[in-house]
Amino acid sequence: MVISNIDSSLANTLSHRRQRLANLIDFPAILWSGGSSPRNFPANLFPFRPSSHFLYFAGLQLPNVAIRLEAGKLELFMDDPKPSSALWHGEMPNRDEIAQTIGADATKPMSELEFSVEDAATIAVQDAATWTQQSQLLNRWVLPQNPPQGIDLELAKAIVSLRLTHDEGALTELRKAAAVTVAAHKAGMAATPQAKLEAEVRAAMEGVIIAHNMTTSYNSIVTVHGEVLHNEQYHHRLQPGDLLLADVGAETETGWAGDVTRTWPVSGKFSPTQKEIYNLVLAAHDACIAKIRPGVEYGDIHLLAATVIAQGLVDLGIFQGNAEDLVEMDAHALFFPHGIGHLLGLDVHDMEDVGDLAGYEEGRQRSDRFGLSYLRLNRPLRPGMLVTIEPGFYQVPAILNDVNLRAKYENIVNWERLSQFSDVRGIRIEDDVLVTTTGSEVLTAALPNDADTVETLTNS
Amino acid sequence: MVISNIDSSLANTLSHRRQRLANLIDFPAILWSGGSSPRNFPANLFPFRPSSHFLYFAGLQLPNVAIRLEAGKLELFMDDPKPSSALWHGEMPNRDEIAQTIGADATKPMSELEFSVEDAATIAVQDAATWTQQSQLLNRWVLPQNPPQGIDLELAKAIVSLRLTHDEGALTELRKAAAVTVAAHKAGMAATPQAKLEAEVRAAMEGVIIAHNMTTSYNSIVTVHGEVLHNEQYHHRLQPGDLLLADVGAETETGWAGDVTRTWPVSGKFSPTQKEIYNLVLAAHDACIAKIRPGVEYGDIHLLAATVIAQGLVDLGIFQGNAEDLVEMDAHALFFPHGIGHLLGLDVHDMEDVGDLAGYEEGRQRSDRFGLSYLRLNRPLRPGMLVTIEPGFYQVPAILNDVNLRAKYENIVNWERLSQFSDVRGIRIEDDVLVTTTGSEVLTAALPNDADTVETLTNS
Repeated sequence: MVISNIDSSLANTLSHRRQRLANLIDFPAILWSGGSSPRNFPANLFPFRPSSHFLYFAGLQLPNVAIRLEAGKLELFMDDPKPSSALWHGEMPNRDEIAQTIGADATKPMSELEFSVEDAATIAVQDAATWTQQSQLLNRWVLPQNPPQGIDLELAKAIVSLRLTHDEGALTELRKAAAVTVAAHKAGMAATPQAKLEAEVRAAMEGVIIAHNMTTSYNSIVTVHGEVLHNEQYHHRLQPGDLLLADVGAETETGWAGDVTRTWPVSGKFSPTQKEIYNLVLAAHDACIAKIRPGVEYGDIHLLAATVIAQGLVDLGIFQGNAEDLVEMDAHALFFPHGIGHLLGLDVHDMEDVGDLAGYEEGRQRSDRFGLSYLRLNRPLRPGMLVTIEPGFYQVPAILNDVNLRAKYENIVNWERLSQFSDVRGIRIEDDVLVTTTGSEVLTAALPNDADTVETLTNS
Repeated sequence: MVISNIDSSLANTLSHRRQRLANLIDFPAILWSGGSSPRNFPANLFPFRPSSHFLYFAGLQLPNVAIRLEAGKLELFMDDPKPSSALWHGEMPNRDEIAQTIGADATKPMSELEFSVEDAATIAVQDAATWTQQSQLLNRWVLPQNPPQGIDLELAKAIVSLRLTHDEGALTELRKAAAVTVAAHKAGMAATPQAKLEAEVRAAMEGVIIAHNMTTSYNSIVTVHGEVLHNEQYHHRLQPGDLLLADVGAETETGWAGDVTRTWPVSGKFSPTQKEIYNLVLAAHDACIAKIRPGVEYGDIHLLAATVIAQGLVDLGIFQGNAEDLVEMDAHALFFPHGIGHLLGLDVHDMEDVGDLAGYEEGRQRSDRFGLSYLRLNRPLRPGMLVTIEPGFYQVPAILNDVNLRAKYENIVNWERLSQFSDVRGIRIEDDVLVTTTGSEVLTAALPNDADTVETLTNS
């Protein structure tokens, strides 16, 4: 727990957030930070990461504490470290020091929390020891896999409405995460000519993140098999004709996330077919960002990407037909089977712990259409929202070899023409885009994405 | 899950291990691999790490499976991946392919496990979803925080007796872990002259581990405050007069751990006082390793380290008295408050999930003496055991400022003399030492530890 690096404006930021919460709910809320999860034995722990809802209102990565929010006031429930812990963990800031840093109105030991739980709402944390404690103290099941109900649901909706758009304190952190994420990708490109394995490029990228005393905001994807969407293997050798897809993001010391994908040629030079598809994905990416402004439906941004990709594949002779018709029948999803992006904040899929409460406007539900079921965000955009824009093109064997899909799209795909693009297994280009009052700002714009500059960065 | 890199001898190694288990128990054992633990939301997972007991008998990092061992036979309970998962995770090896790799005698879907649980023993895994399943299927509480009882205790003792000494399959992996751990430390030393923060040195070290497609076997300690024994902060700036203490280990793709500590001067040059203490810790380290051979009590190795350190502090004028007497009254623990080391294997504190069953010979219990309570291993050494040897010297404020301890050792410590060593906050030197039939082999011997070479590596 680092307290020295914390900006002095933290207490003001937190005070403002809980005042806004108080305007939305008239019952107390108790947010637990959670505890560490064990890896292979109880004393060998995964790095501690608090609940994001706790972090939003408490600002610091404090294990095994709780805050109670009511009418704009914050009570901190925390035990001072035992004297013996100073031997192993050094002198830690005590409860009063932390209370001052975060602007708490009162502090109490954890043992007193049980007297302050009446009528309080909460949100389940992820670790079992803490959700067991939540359930016991509140005398109801509070489980991470159960959708919130009753006042817990009201609390979740209230917090979602706050966290949907980012205040200045959040944006300062999100810009830091973006900057380090950009640096990591540049390091990955630069390391590629000397690398023999995917793991070596990953090391160069995560090394930048670790060197900035940050952590990855999710398990990195660094692969020559970009067609495997959530590929977490890093053992493949890099071959000269391969494309390397890297989806890597940094998370700041107070928990705010970056999330960027770039795809570059291992050889430092795209083949003509790779460049055709790369530029098509980039055109979809640019068209989406150009369309972002308040009031625009994010679902329409997704459909715009689908249409640009469908039109491009028509132009390349891979699809036959009219782009709008192809999107209507989900043909684009043969090659672009995921959503155009998601909310980004303290979580890389922000607030996904409360299901689609954050991603979907009230009253809307996920589509079961092949091309839309994976869309994680379906709301009109508002200033202060941070979203990813991440179109892609993939030749996924599980899709392209599916008998039913091949039959359905038999007359649409020119399979012979497609076979000429066999060196394009997976391409994705992803940036973090802030909705502004007049349009958008790409927080990760310092990382070039045009094919020529990507080649140059890889060869440098 | 990587299957391509697995040595073809794996099935033989695993077969041998379960035959040996069958010689020790006459009831079936079911070992679950465990599942991933969520980080900040359910889909954002910590990297999966199976139970070490499972890994010992199944060899592969397979999530959410179980093996049933009886009379030397292995049944694999595993569900084939759903077709839809191929989209996200690619084509994975199916159950039959995995069964062949690990030499399973039979395979069944997980749903059939409930029909094979009668009279079966198990060991609790660490993640809540899986220990809940263990408890439900076996119809008794199987909790990671509870000591095993009944047949579970018999199973734990049998597995401990196997895992206490390492077979050739294990040693091959442990040597790989040692080699990459050594390379990481060399990279850390080399990165120090250009580094401004502890985090930058950590990045250089973990970068080597990641580049070899390995993971850290525990959360790294890379700090200029080595006097904080379990320091997991990396934000301090490096100052020319500081010592940097790095306790970092690599874990191979099949889960075997390395664990090494070195301490080097940020400036590339030890001060005279730092060099005095460094050489004293090294003398203790070397004396311990020289004493290692079958039949020697590990507790005596610990006391040897304590005696060498006490004698050295007498020679330096920091202690007054006779070394044996000083150790008898635990005075060495003022500066060397932890044990000389521990077992190393699939876990960095091997088998610590079953408490002291592995570390302590049957019938022995932890001492409550200030100088001995943290001793993690108390057994006679046997060929094939892998232990760490990690003496240290620390000026821990929580100890040296403790009123009771100061009173107790008032006439023993020359506090004025000690104050001349204020630039020595923490030094530890740790290697991984295999007990052989005739003595010992230092698996991490490729990493120099003499002061001059450490300086040279830091300046190179």
